[in-house]
Amino acid sequence: MADWQVVSGGITAPKGFKAGGIAAGLKPSGSPDLALIVSDVDAIAAGVFTTSQVKAACVDYCRQRLQAKPSARAILCNAGQANAATGAQGWADAVESAQLTGQALGISPELVLVASTGVIGQRIKMEQMRSGIPKLVETLSDNGSDAAAKAIITTDLVTKSIALELMLDGRPVRVGGICKGSGMIHPNMATMLAFVTCDAAISPHLWQEMVSRAADKSFNQITVDGDTSTNDSLIALANGESRTPAITESGAESDKLEAALTEVCMHLAKAIARDGEGATCLIEVQVSGAPDDASARQIARTVAGSSLFKSAVFGRDPNWGRIAAAAGRAGVPFEQDHLRVQLGTFLLMERGQPLPFDRAAASAYMKQAAAGAYLQDDTVLVAIDIGSGSGSGMAWGCDLSYDYVKINAEYTT
Amino acid sequence: MADWQVVSGGITAPKGFKAGGIAAGLKPSGSPDLALIVSDVDAIAAGVFTTSQVKAACVDYCRQRLQAKPSARAILCNAGQANAATGAQGWADAVESAQLTGQALGISPELVLVASTGVIGQRIKMEQMRSGIPKLVETLSDNGSDAAAKAIITTDLVTKSIALELMLDGRPVRVGGICKGSGMIHPNMATMLAFVTCDAAISPHLWQEMVSRAADKSFNQITVDGDTSTNDSLIALANGESRTPAITESGAESDKLEAALTEVCMHLAKAIARDGEGATCLIEVQVSGAPDDASARQIARTVAGSSLFKSAVFGRDPNWGRIAAAAGRAGVPFEQDHLRVQLGTFLLMERGQPLPFDRAAASAYMKQAAAGAYLQDDTVLVAIDIGSGSGSGMAWGCDLSYDYVKINAEYTT
Repeated sequence: MADWQVVSGGITAPKGFKAGGIAAGLKPSGSPDLALIVSDVDAIAAGVFTTSQVKAACVDYCRQRLQAKPSARAILCNAGQANAATGAQGWADAVESAQLTGQALGISPELVLVASTGVIGQRIKMEQMRSGIPKLVETLSDNGSDAAAKAIITTDLVTKSIALELMLDGRPVRVGGICKGSGMIHPNMATMLAFVTCDAAISPHLWQEMVSRAADKSFNQITVDGDTSTNDSLIALANGESRTPAITESGAESDKLEAALTEVCMHLAKAIARDGEGATCLIEVQVSGAPDDASARQIARTVAGSSLFKSAVFGRDPNWGRIAAAAGRAGVPFEQDHLRVQLGTFLLMERGQPLPFDRAAASAYMKQAAAGAYLQDDTVLVAIDIGSGSGSGMAWGCDLSYDYVKINAEYTT
Repeated sequence: MADWQVVSGGITAPKGFKAGGIAAGLKPSGSPDLALIVSDVDAIAAGVFTTSQVKAACVDYCRQRLQAKPSARAILCNAGQANAATGAQGWADAVESAQLTGQALGISPELVLVASTGVIGQRIKMEQMRSGIPKLVETLSDNGSDAAAKAIITTDLVTKSIALELMLDGRPVRVGGICKGSGMIHPNMATMLAFVTCDAAISPHLWQEMVSRAADKSFNQITVDGDTSTNDSLIALANGESRTPAITESGAESDKLEAALTEVCMHLAKAIARDGEGATCLIEVQVSGAPDDASARQIARTVAGSSLFKSAVFGRDPNWGRIAAAAGRAGVPFEQDHLRVQLGTFLLMERGQPLPFDRAAASAYMKQAAAGAYLQDDTVLVAIDIGSGSGSGMAWGCDLSYDYVKINAEYTT
């Protein structure tokens, strides 16, 4: 039994958070493109950012801010221009964006974090930012999560949002999140962005550890095309407005909060994979029997990212050979005689040997899973055991379709 | 100036080698499917094999043989069944195949290496092997390279072969090679196989080192879909029949031989990438300015393997953002302000900043390169400098097309 329940409200579900989103004229399409998340009081802030050597100014800016002080009141996010590969001017634009937001909110600019998504190599349209930010502040509201979620997407087909409520010390605490991402998107578009809010009170050190671990189990375990973007960011704020006792050390209460935070991150991560460019279904790969959890996650990620396996899923082909081959090349040593592979309820391979199975029925499972008939969602489930220990982990991806190639090849800049 | 010239004859170009290939009834199509390469005398043998944990019986067999003694007279290769994930019976079939070949040739079975390619999980059709091997031996000839090259392919569109002649101590020495591979091929098909022959005399230790280094610069630097197969093997024989002085230590002569061997391996590796499933062109990624050669090769491989970049090449889109993003996530630290990216003769990025360039002309270059108008072949050239040292390296791939998805999704088993 989960220790939480799903509630509405997204990032404004936790107490003391407001959000808003407007069309500020940054996207050529005129769609919403500027979002703001604000905490009523200073919140503990933790971040996880792209590991790419080529990174956006906003990533450098947030890293620097959070190193100086793990605290924030606001997150400003623009869509349309990634502000990556924009040099010193890009940095100045990020700084000015934070300053404009601080002025409009009447808070120190040091408490404003910034994020960008859009075309790499393009500066943020600062004129539109200067006129847009004050208007954006006027739209902030207790139920502004959807507006913010809409304003951060680029070529995503759907917005992505979740909120959970759990009990800490007998009082309700909420964790909410929104995110965007759909591959490293056409043309030159990029970025997975996720923003999480929480009204628990927690020490900065514990919060950052918790957020990093949650990211490892969620956002770091999804793959649409294996391409890490220049702007990938997860920023999580905890403002203490639930008035629950401050969590200052690891224990039962911190474990409960971390479980809910991880669930929020996994929900958002899966939503990105499901909305992957050209995807017709979500693929979940569960790995057990690994020497440790990190090894299990590595194998899961390799299988979920295999172009051959992804193509097979698009073709509804129960191709155990590609699953076994991908597991084998993941860089984790195991005895192939211990390999076990299951697809949905179909056992395809045991002790390293292929088993007879009803190929038509397994293909039908993939078809129906993709159509959303199983598991109450559109998930094709692969379970792998390598018989080498008790480590386990999951990863998520999507199938590789004609539309992926079309989106990334035909719509040239 | 290269120290060698291209000659005809493939693997039978070096002195003292014969080859042959027949249709033994292993492939349902009735195409040639059984090949044999034989040296007149014991040859020094070196091998490089798949690093996958899930590997074929033939890979285990060859590793064991070469560890016991780095010497061989013959390589038998069957196409149609991969003999991977076939357990103890698969091992017994590999052993019997070597024994049958040894009997038919009148040599010790310990001098016979075996290789397989085809459907994973399927045993070799041993009845056909028992009747086929004696017939195959009868076809062995001094100009049997093409017959052998035809009998090792699966869904490859073309055979792949090369031979070079160089002078060592004033006498001609030849290095020849054939290979197969076109992705990890439909349905459940797998494998890159390469066989190299050489008539130089060389010590086993030097030969294995040379072969490993050549593989690192060639076969380990190509990617069609990032999937390592269960059967990947490079086997290289050196039989001394050129009667040139034995190379027993590193020096000018061994360097010359290694350069020619590396060229043979690079030619064959590029031929595989060019024949990648669904490919319309070859992509060559040259990386310089890296801390060391291994780092350079890692970046080159990451860019050549990026689905986003591969899709852009298929769309003839000079998408520098995807090149920069892929370089950035390769795991090699560098200053993004030092990044330089060139496509053909078009400088797209310098000091980490995008440059203005003639987009239509760059796209036209990609179109014409793909049509084979540039560089006398069908290569799209990307040059990247990360300004962090003197390490350099190359990798090869192909574009990602609708046909890749079609081949791997539609033709279900």
